[in-house]
Amino acid sequence: MKAMRTLVRASAIAVTAALLTAPAAAEDGYRLWLRTQAPVEGPIAISRLGDTPTLRLAEAELRRDLPAAANLPVLVALASDPSVSALRLPVADLGNEGYLVRPVSLGGRPVLLVTGNTDRGVLYGAFALIRHAASGGQIGSATLRSAPKVKLRVLNHWDNLDGTVERGYSGESLWDWWKLPDYRDPRYTDYARANASIGINGTVLNNVNAKADSLTAPYIAKAAALADVFRPWGIRVYLSARFSAPIEIGGLKTADPRDPAVAAWWKAKADEIYRAIPDFGGFLVKANSEGQPGPRDYGASHADGANMLAAAVKPHGGIVMWRAFVYADTDPEDRAKQAYTEFKPLDGKFADNVMVQVKNGAIDFQPREPFHPLFGAMPRTPLMMEFQITKEYLGQATHLAYLGPLFTEVLEAKTGRGRETVASVVDGESERHQLTGMAGVANIGDDRDWTGGTFNQANWYAFGRLAWDPSLDAAAIAREWAQQTFGTDPRVVDPVVDMMMRSREAVVDYTGPLGLAHVMATGHHYGPGPWVSELQRPEWNPVYYHRADRQGIGFDRSRTGSNAVAQYAPAVAKLYANPRTTPESELLWFHHLPWDYRLKSGETLWEGMVRRYDRGVATVATMRREWDGLRALVDAERWEKTAAFLSIQEREARWWRDASLAYWQSVNGLPLPAGVAAPEHDLAWYKAQSFPHAPGNPH
Amino acid sequence: MKAMRTLVRASAIAVTAALLTAPAAAEDGYRLWLRTQAPVEGPIAISRLGDTPTLRLAEAELRRDLPAAANLPVLVALASDPSVSALRLPVADLGNEGYLVRPVSLGGRPVLLVTGNTDRGVLYGAFALIRHAASGGQIGSATLRSAPKVKLRVLNHWDNLDGTVERGYSGESLWDWWKLPDYRDPRYTDYARANASIGINGTVLNNVNAKADSLTAPYIAKAAALADVFRPWGIRVYLSARFSAPIEIGGLKTADPRDPAVAAWWKAKADEIYRAIPDFGGFLVKANSEGQPGPRDYGASHADGANMLAAAVKPHGGIVMWRAFVYADTDPEDRAKQAYTEFKPLDGKFADNVMVQVKNGAIDFQPREPFHPLFGAMPRTPLMMEFQITKEYLGQATHLAYLGPLFTEVLEAKTGRGRETVASVVDGESERHQLTGMAGVANIGDDRDWTGGTFNQANWYAFGRLAWDPSLDAAAIAREWAQQTFGTDPRVVDPVVDMMMRSREAVVDYTGPLGLAHVMATGHHYGPGPWVSELQRPEWNPVYYHRADRQGIGFDRSRTGSNAVAQYAPAVAKLYANPRTTPESELLWFHHLPWDYRLKSGETLWEGMVRRYDRGVATVATMRREWDGLRALVDAERWEKTAAFLSIQEREARWWRDASLAYWQSVNGLPLPAGVAAPEHDLAWYKAQSFPHAPGNPH
Repeated sequence: MKAMRTLVRASAIAVTAALLTAPAAAEDGYRLWLRTQAPVEGPIAISRLGDTPTLRLAEAELRRDLPAAANLPVLVALASDPSVSALRLPVADLGNEGYLVRPVSLGGRPVLLVTGNTDRGVLYGAFALIRHAASGGQIGSATLRSAPKVKLRVLNHWDNLDGTVERGYSGESLWDWWKLPDYRDPRYTDYARANASIGINGTVLNNVNAKADSLTAPYIAKAAALADVFRPWGIRVYLSARFSAPIEIGGLKTADPRDPAVAAWWKAKADEIYRAIPDFGGFLVKANSEGQPGPRDYGASHADGANMLAAAVKPHGGIVMWRAFVYADTDPEDRAKQAYTEFKPLDGKFADNVMVQVKNGAIDFQPREPFHPLFGAMPRTPLMMEFQITKEYLGQATHLAYLGPLFTEVLEAKTGRGRETVASVVDGESERHQLTGMAGVANIGDDRDWTGGTFNQANWYAFGRLAWDPSLDAAAIAREWAQQTFGTDPRVVDPVVDMMMRSREAVVDYTGPLGLAHVMATGHHYGPGPWVSELQRPEWNPVYYHRADRQGIGFDRSRTGSNAVAQYAPAVAKLYANPRTTPESELLWFHHLPWDYRLKSGETLWEGMVRRYDRGVATVATMRREWDGLRALVDAERWEKTAAFLSIQEREARWWRDASLAYWQSVNGLPLPAGVAAPEHDLAWYKAQSFPHAPGNPH
Repeated sequence: MKAMRTLVRASAIAVTAALLTAPAAAEDGYRLWLRTQAPVEGPIAISRLGDTPTLRLAEAELRRDLPAAANLPVLVALASDPSVSALRLPVADLGNEGYLVRPVSLGGRPVLLVTGNTDRGVLYGAFALIRHAASGGQIGSATLRSAPKVKLRVLNHWDNLDGTVERGYSGESLWDWWKLPDYRDPRYTDYARANASIGINGTVLNNVNAKADSLTAPYIAKAAALADVFRPWGIRVYLSARFSAPIEIGGLKTADPRDPAVAAWWKAKADEIYRAIPDFGGFLVKANSEGQPGPRDYGASHADGANMLAAAVKPHGGIVMWRAFVYADTDPEDRAKQAYTEFKPLDGKFADNVMVQVKNGAIDFQPREPFHPLFGAMPRTPLMMEFQITKEYLGQATHLAYLGPLFTEVLEAKTGRGRETVASVVDGESERHQLTGMAGVANIGDDRDWTGGTFNQANWYAFGRLAWDPSLDAAAIAREWAQQTFGTDPRVVDPVVDMMMRSREAVVDYTGPLGLAHVMATGHHYGPGPWVSELQRPEWNPVYYHRADRQGIGFDRSRTGSNAVAQYAPAVAKLYANPRTTPESELLWFHHLPWDYRLKSGETLWEGMVRRYDRGVATVATMRREWDGLRALVDAERWEKTAAFLSIQEREARWWRDASLAYWQSVNGLPLPAGVAAPEHDLAWYKAQSFPHAPGNPH
């Protein structure tokens, strides 16, 4: 025994020493926004009534993370616990996941009660209290009350079975498929904890560009091991299903959803999955899109395909998330119109456990897109929002681009149908659907700081918070994230929030202002490529989107063009139909306009474009200066990393600006306005840049 | 100022709390064998004379890592420092990298002096003292003295520019090429420190299956950033060079080494590299091997190619490491003979800054191979040893296989030329070459514990220690590693060393006993594949190597067969020529023998094979039991991980054994000896196993 005690003591000393002599190692970003502040022997008395794994986690989290400032003992308990229900608190409308935190008197003793109708609710309450305290709130007087507005708050991991991550910029997949199910990396628990802390309750483990292998017995066992780890944190596991799996691993000759043998195969497969994962969430499907198989291969509709899968998981309470991101190989129709054209007629045809998952815009996660016209157009179908948290088109790992404003801009958009907003479509307020959901394409990898950079963590955080409550304010989320991540000192928080709130618009400015989109390089999507015109399919080429010529620039989606505007409700369509009533931020998305078109500022379109490119670069320079000012106030390791990233971003912002201007000038023949710096290189130089080893490429 | 102090204090509290409430996170293997034990305010007085970055590191390492038990102040100083040279210590033979640690009296004051002729020597001395103390040695009385026997101790990273690692089983490449040179991950420093602690003084950053891109300006700048980080740790950077780079990135039409334009291109390229990295080490080249380009493409010899590159780096003091791992696409000669056939005639033809890098055996890093016949056969050429630290053929990430005995078995082998051993060829004792070197194919990736498993760290460690001194004992290295890694408690150290020392032979037993080799599955090399016979090139197929038929098994390399034995010196060749004098551990490497051949034990060959397969499985079971017994003595996180790995290993050892026996029985038609368990499945089942997502595959 003595030797053991010695060993333990030596180890504790070692740990303390390691960190105090090498403090940088402790500030590597691993702890995300959950930066433990509780003292070892804190003055806070935390007790618990009831005993489930999730209640125990709620208690443990409070012990671990609640700052020492509480002047009340804290009690964790279900609302149904007799001593709590006796208080007759207003908990009925908290539902299955809501929480209530408030000071109460229990047996004559004042306590801060953390409660909910379920243990998951209690856990969310514990995290809400920690968040409240870590963002500077008082603990003793805290009254916190919230229930999620969206039922399914789910990450989509575009993670491949070989460990790579499509459009991942933060290392390999967290899932060590190869060593699962035998080895359960402790990091899986930390992942679940981080998600639970912001209310995420589901995760799709594998890429929507799916392999059928993920549905074989060995991989079901691996997924089950992850589900076991995630379960007490209130997180369910989902899988992307490859539609042709019945052929590839089932030995069938077809995957036709109307073939009874196919339906039977999927039913048996679902039964097999549920035997291993009793609370399996269901399937996510990318069908008939970018080469993926689907029901259209057999002349069946997306509804036929989705409903067949839905029937397989229905007896188990599972759902199907069916992506609306489709555009055909051969369809000459404006790509922005195709998803609507395909899915709108299917409204009302989907089974009641199917959700249609729609990207925020009609193209593909561009720095700015108008909201997708399907939102509001399928009232009889629950539509999930699909946001991209990983910044495929917004500077990937290194550019600071806080996506909160991108998310809220879309959620707050009015669909033109009365007071309806995109948020009210998604959260079910509009049509009272039983199912509601929001999906975020994860930016998480096995980099030590999870997301390849401190500020990328904010996008994971913001997605979770907005999925819980789409009405939250992006700046408020930025502030609470910054407080938890860097501490509550306003000398840090204020400039950090300022940087974050400028950052997305800066990316829009230096990559594609005024509604330009899809002007990036091919394949890896890294850097500018507005000149790309030689790819096989027209809609793969940037020139398809910007349509710049000597006379003007922009995609005419008004009645004189593709008439995509007609896919919006009349009140919105009317605004978009006219350049004068189209928001200038979306101008060239909807209109092809002459270079000398007059903007509201009085500038020509060309002058306004140039000014915005310059403004984007200048904003990054300002962000750098702001960050430089924080050197003494932020730990060295995280400061250095962001400083290095901002220097990359400034260089690349200039590159985007210079390359784009050089190209536009080659098309319009116009001089730069007086006083504007010429591009550093000529157009040929920019075209010659090549990045064969850029990360995140699909296979 | 007040707010800043508060911030700092809060942060220190947070750090302490995080670790004491979540101790598991601190024991994630990141610290390797350098497990800080120094108290924050230690009683050890450490001082330093002289000021170079490397001397400062030596001091800092002692402050950070030296246990508190020293009863003498420690002084770090160059031997040339006047106060030290006055002591007239015996330092002349320490050379450029050796160290001396010993108690001296300085100015009447007793101190423990850590010294050397260079600051690198002092740094190695500091690490030697830390190692000595952490393995239980007394500090006050320590007298340590050593100089490396091998000059170049270098890791070969088979890391690709896209972040993947060929034959890597511990995550992605450490090098974040994409963010270099802007972002210097603090982990690069920790990597250099770990290497310096075991005497490694060079690192080849990129895969021998090289891309020419690594020689372009952007990648030279990236390599230079790494070199800057590594330099104070005494580590030089090397690059694998693609022989056809003059064509691919130089715009030339040929890479013929005899073409003056080609030589001029390489010279200019070397000049460019040395401008960025003044202490660049040189090039490693895999030429005319497995599809790589090389001088043979132009009818020139390997010496022509190596010497042309050597001339390019010569003015800068650089070297060329030219790999002897060649076998031709079309050559029907026994693959085991081809490298000797090609290189032996070139002895004496290489420039004086060329080393020929020879794998430990003539095939490819098998669990056991006889030493490569080139060792001892090229007296006029400095031969580097190439070991594989990554366990491509020994269970990859998860199997516990301590390679110390594999390394020392080869190093201790007698070449048959007098008292010469392979070690004496490598360390230059035989021929007194100016250049000596040992290379290890790294098992390092960005997994948190660097090597994908705690025990894999021991192989990195053992390589470094043996490169410094090839005469070290494998068990002694295991012991000092275990003491540093798990603490000095003999209840832990003894069983750990026992497991380690049994482990490699267990792998030999369950994968291919009695000299069998190359019986693994295709491509990923994961698991058994003795039946594989359909691959395009004969020497890609396991059946080529084991040649099992109804009558017998083994590759006849005696005079009646390929006569590969004749490549050894007569004294050794004579032993290998006769099955009776061939060590049974290498029997089937050299001889095709009937199944009823009598082993020295009296068993038939078949009985002896079966017994060894069973013994391998049983040894793994024993290792599991030993590890189970350590549950209370090893921290939970590392204990759980190794326990999970051992369960995988036991299952896979059985799989290897069962699959192999099922196959051998299908060939020889023999029953299993009485009492031996039948394979769990039939042969068809084993053949049907498929692992498309196994890690480590080449591109």
